[in-house]
Amino acid sequence: MMARAMIATHPDVKGSVNDALIRCIEDCYSCAQACTACADACLAEDMVAELRQCIRLNLDCADLCTATGSIATRRTGSNEAVIRLTVQACTEACRICAEECERHAAMHEHCRICAESCRRCETACREALDSLA
Amino acid sequence: MMARAMIATHPDVKGSVNDALIRCIEDCYSCAQACTACADACLAEDMVAELRQCIRLNLDCADLCTATGSIATRRTGSNEAVIRLTVQACTEACRICAEECERHAAMHEHCRICAESCRRCETACREALDSLA
Amino acid sequence: MMARAMIATHPDVKGSVNDALIRCIEDCYSCAQACTACADACLAEDMVAELRQCIRLNLDCADLCTATGSIATRRTGSNEAVIRLTVQACTEACRICAEECERHAAMHEHCRICAESCRRCETACREALDSLA
Amino acid sequence: MMARAMIATHPDVKGSVNDALIRCIEDCYSCAQACTACADACLAEDMVAELRQCIRLNLDCADLCTATGSIATRRTGSNEAVIRLTVQACTEACRICAEECERHAAMHEHCRICAESCRRCETACREALDSLA
Repeated sequence: MMARAMIATHPDVKGSVNDALIRCIEDCYSCAQACTACADACLAEDMVAELRQCIRLNLDCADLCTATGSIATRRTGSNEAVIRLTVQACTEACRICAEECERHAAMHEHCRICAESCRRCETACREALDSLA
Repeated sequence: MMARAMIATHPDVKGSVNDALIRCIEDCYSCAQACTACADACLAEDMVAELRQCIRLNLDCADLCTATGSIATRRTGSNEAVIRLTVQACTEACRICAEECERHAAMHEHCRICAESCRRCETACREALDSLA
Repeated sequence: MMARAMIATHPDVKGSVNDALIRCIEDCYSCAQACTACADACLAEDMVAELRQCIRLNLDCADLCTATGSIATRRTGSNEAVIRLTVQACTEACRICAEECERHAAMHEHCRICAESCRRCETACREALDSLA
Repeated sequence: MMARAMIATHPDVKGSVNDALIRCIEDCYSCAQACTACADACLAEDMVAELRQCIRLNLDCADLCTATGSIATRRTGSNEAVIRLTVQACTEACRICAEECERHAAMHEHCRICAESCRRCETACREALDSLA
């Protein structure tokens, strides 16, 4: 992912990049992929009936991570209130999805990796929020 | 849009539909389309340089409306904290985008209609939040 | 949905609207909602294990309908080759998803309604393709 | 991005991963971010009026890359006809967007980097299509 290089060349940014926001963007795209994959892998498990809540949280988390990655990428003009609220919603979606995936991590390797991805994104979102303060 | 019919037949809903949430879902999809169209129409205007902030807010609003429409549609299991935070972010994105579009409404009919769509979605989001309380 | 009004006010369109394309846009957003809801309702069914393929096709169809609604909404500049290929992919996604949902339509009302939504969108996509020829 | 690890643990994949498809998925998410950033950076340029077509193609390409990354990630059941058509549409969107960005690459560094990202994604899409044949 070239998020840092892309944002560093934005006319309004001129090289002064917010690294915490860059990590948040990259982790959001990565987490969207992980959650999409985990939802699909859970769906293929024999015990799918016990993974319904995990699939639902994965899909919600993927939707929010995609929106957050895109909204946090934009630097033209200003929309900080919306970035802030979106990143907050994404933080919570990642936290809740990680918690659920961790419950299945011992049994399903995709849940273990997805939980890691969600925790990393949750942390990156929190640090991005601090950096915007 | 068949949002009401679709959600009424969900096994966990069994006909007891939250009408405020249904309106929120439908207005989110509608507003995503309006904001996508308004961003594109602004881009084609001679005075595009003065519409940069409008385009940016339109794109952010479209991303959040799409995510909100999808997340608010899901009824399996539970994810109310995330629905609530997502709808809150969407409310603010709609409000801010409406304000900006209203500034150009006298000059650009697409901004006038888009502002209406954003205000309708903002109201629907607020009523959905109340209904979840 | 205000797709017609929004696109009619685009500076490059000036009132000469392609009605087949408008219907395609509106049906794409509507079908994205129906498929998102059907995937979620299938996930909540006791027989979820037998609905895995339906859920997978619903999610793929929702993703393509969302992308198609957005891409077909844009009228600035030109990108007809991409619109055409996207609408073709969407036509096939709708057709295949409709076929699968029809298999479960007698048992699950959400599949019956979703199949209708997919067939309507499939037809609208075909007519939009004809209108672009 | 953990696309390889996530897909390798899918119950239906069992370690036999299609590496060309993995690269396609990762490049799609990366290209979606680059195109979103390039559209926004173009919007902030003094010469925005000359970059309208670039912005439009960037937005279309981002939409298709996002849908393709998500659809190509799913391995449950089968939907190869739709994956194939979606990746074809994405290949063309990347090729056309790269061509346009290359025209501005000497003047705008964000267009130069975005063009590279689109070319890489275009190649990855072609190789994924070959691998599915």
